[in-house]
Amino acid sequence: MLPKVVVTDIDGVWTDGGMYYDQTGNEFKKFNTYDSAGILWCKLNNIKVIIATGENTKIVQRRADKLDVDYVFLGVKNKVQILNQLFNEINIKWSEIAYIGDDINDYHALEKSGFSACPMNSPSYIKNIVDYEVPVMGGDGAFRCFIEHILSREKLMTDTLDRYLSSSKLKFEQ
Amino acid sequence: MLPKVVVTDIDGVWTDGGMYYDQTGNEFKKFNTYDSAGILWCKLNNIKVIIATGENTKIVQRRADKLDVDYVFLGVKNKVQILNQLFNEINIKWSEIAYIGDDINDYHALEKSGFSACPMNSPSYIKNIVDYEVPVMGGDGAFRCFIEHILSREKLMTDTLDRYLSSSKLKFEQ
Amino acid sequence: MLPKVVVTDIDGVWTDGGMYYDQTGNEFKKFNTYDSAGILWCKLNNIKVIIATGENTKIVQRRADKLDVDYVFLGVKNKVQILNQLFNEINIKWSEIAYIGDDINDYHALEKSGFSACPMNSPSYIKNIVDYEVPVMGGDGAFRCFIEHILSREKLMTDTLDRYLSSSKLKFEQ
Amino acid sequence: MLPKVVVTDIDGVWTDGGMYYDQTGNEFKKFNTYDSAGILWCKLNNIKVIIATGENTKIVQRRADKLDVDYVFLGVKNKVQILNQLFNEINIKWSEIAYIGDDINDYHALEKSGFSACPMNSPSYIKNIVDYEVPVMGGDGAFRCFIEHILSREKLMTDTLDRYLSSSKLKFEQ
Repeated sequence: MLPKVVVTDIDGVWTDGGMYYDQTGNEFKKFNTYDSAGILWCKLNNIKVIIATGENTKIVQRRADKLDVDYVFLGVKNKVQILNQLFNEINIKWSEIAYIGDDINDYHALEKSGFSACPMNSPSYIKNIVDYEVPVMGGDGAFRCFIEHILSREKLMTDTLDRYLSSSKLKFEQ
Repeated sequence: MLPKVVVTDIDGVWTDGGMYYDQTGNEFKKFNTYDSAGILWCKLNNIKVIIATGENTKIVQRRADKLDVDYVFLGVKNKVQILNQLFNEINIKWSEIAYIGDDINDYHALEKSGFSACPMNSPSYIKNIVDYEVPVMGGDGAFRCFIEHILSREKLMTDTLDRYLSSSKLKFEQ
Repeated sequence: MLPKVVVTDIDGVWTDGGMYYDQTGNEFKKFNTYDSAGILWCKLNNIKVIIATGENTKIVQRRADKLDVDYVFLGVKNKVQILNQLFNEINIKWSEIAYIGDDINDYHALEKSGFSACPMNSPSYIKNIVDYEVPVMGGDGAFRCFIEHILSREKLMTDTLDRYLSSSKLKFEQ
Repeated sequence: MLPKVVVTDIDGVWTDGGMYYDQTGNEFKKFNTYDSAGILWCKLNNIKVIIATGENTKIVQRRADKLDVDYVFLGVKNKVQILNQLFNEINIKWSEIAYIGDDINDYHALEKSGFSACPMNSPSYIKNIVDYEVPVMGGDGAFRCFIEHILSREKLMTDTLDRYLSSSKLKFEQ
C-alpha cells in the first residue's frame, strides 16, 4: 500500500550531517540534486511530503520552497507531538505514513510510522528499529532511494518514470 | 568519428550533485579543476562545447566564462527543444553530437545523441540507455574522462597531449 | 571508571581537517551534527566537555555556544600548559581526563591523559601513543564514537539512551 | 640528499581539485590542516617552500601567509619560466629541487626537478613521469606525505619529530 504522506528529516538524510559554519554567523548545508527527483516522484503519485527538522534555519526553508514541499516544520523539539497535531488536522493515521530519519530525535516517530527507514550510515540503535535500511548514505540521495524503494515495492516505479518521460517528450515534439 | 559538438549537463556531471545553500539566499557549487583540461582538449581538436542545465544560477555562467565555453543554456526546462533550435542554426545533426548527462531531464537528449555517456553513479534508468559509462563519479573529473575517452577512441589523445606540451615547452625555451 | 572531563581538539576530530578559505578573509569549517549527540551523552552523565584548539576563529566559538560546551580554549599554543592551569583551578587530575586529538600539538596532552584516543586517519606517531583508535575518520562523528566507546566500556550507553528516550517520550504523551 | 627547496602546486595537491563558486563572484578552496605540518617539517630542516599555481586568487595568498611560505607565485602561465628566473636569483639548480604537482601544467617542471612527485589520483601521463607517487589523494595531506617521505628517505623524520616535541615540552615544564 502506498503511503499517503512521507515525512523526512533533513540533517543526515538530505545531507551527510555536515554543518558548514563561517566566522560571521552564516551557515551552509550541502543538499543533493538527486533528492529532487524523489519529490517529483511523490508529486506524480499524489504523496504529500513533510519536512520535520530540529534545526531552525532559513537554509531548509529555501530548499523546501524551491522543491515545493507540502509542509515544513523547523526547530522541532518533539517531532511526534508536532506530527500528531498535523495528522489530526489533515485526518491521517501514523499507519499511513512513511518516515525517514537518521538519529535519536527521530526514534519515537520511526517507531510509530507505518513504514520506517534510515540511511545506511545511521547509528545502530536507529538501524535496529527501522523497517528498511536505505543502501546509500545521507546526502548521497537517500531520500530519493527511499521513495524509489516505496514505489518499486508497489510496482509503480516504471509507470512513474514512463509518465514523466512521455509528458516531457510531448513538449519538444509539439 | 570525432563529434563536432559535445553537450554537457552540470549538476551531477561537473559536480557530485551537491548544492550548498546558505541562510542569505546565496548558493555554492563545487567544480573540479580536472574538468578544465577536458575543455582544453576540445579546443585543441576544434570541438565546440555546449552547457545545458536545468538550474538558473550565475554560478554556472561564471564557470563557463572562465573556461571559455562556446554555448551556455541556463534554466532549461526542455533540453531537446533548446538544442534542436541551436543545431538548426549552426547546422549540426544529433548524430554528430556527444552528450554527457546523469539524470532524467537528460534522458531524451541522451537517446537522440550520436554518442551518449553518464558518470558511474547515475541512476540505473540512465545507465541503461547510454553508450558509455564514464568510470568516475560526477564531480571527480567525469567530463574530462568523457572527452579523453572520445579522443583515445580516435587515437587522438597522445597527439593532443603532445601538441599541448610542445607549445608550452616552446614558451620557456625562447 | 568514567572520566570527569573530556578534552577535545577540533580540526581533524570534529572536522576532516578541512579549512575552507574564500577571497575576502572569511573561512568555513564543516562540523557534523552526529557529534552533537556526543555532547548530549556527556551532559546526561555529568561529564564536563573542554575544547582546546590551536586555531583562533569565531567558527569554533559559535559551534561551542550552540552545543553549550563547558570550556573553550581558542588559539592555544601549548595545550598542556593551559590545561594544567584549568585542572588546578577546578581540582581535576590528568588521570581523570579522557582526551581525543589527532596531531602533533596534541601529543604531550595525549600522553598525560588517563585515557587517550585519536581518529583512525591520524598520523602513525599519534596512533602509536594513544589508548584507543576511534574506528571512524575525523569529521565523521569521531567525537561521538569516542564518547559512546567510553560509556559502553562502563556499560552506561544503554542506560543513557533509555533515559534520553523516556524523557522525550514523556513530553509528547502528556 | 635533502632538497634545498620544495616547489608545490596548489589545486589538486593542497586541495582535491575542488573550486567552490558562489553567485556573487566569490570562491572557496578547501585546504587541509594536515599539510601545515609539512611546512613545519621544512622549516625545521631549512628547506625553502615555493608555491607556484596557475590560479590567481587571494585564497592561496592568504593560506601561504598564514603558513609563512617563502615564495608564492600566483597566476603562473609557465611554471618553468618563472622558476628558472627565481632559481637564477637565489642560485639554486633544478637538481636541488623537489617538486609536487598533479597536472599537465606541472609536466615540464616535474621533468626538470631533481625529485618529482604527484598525488595518487593524478592522470596517468603525470604518474608516468614522476619519481614518486604519494600514497594519498590531493587534499588529503598529499603535501605533508611528500615532505615526510623525503625526510624519512634521509632518516631525518624521527629526529625532526623529536626536536619539535622536545621544544614544545620545554615550554610547559618551565
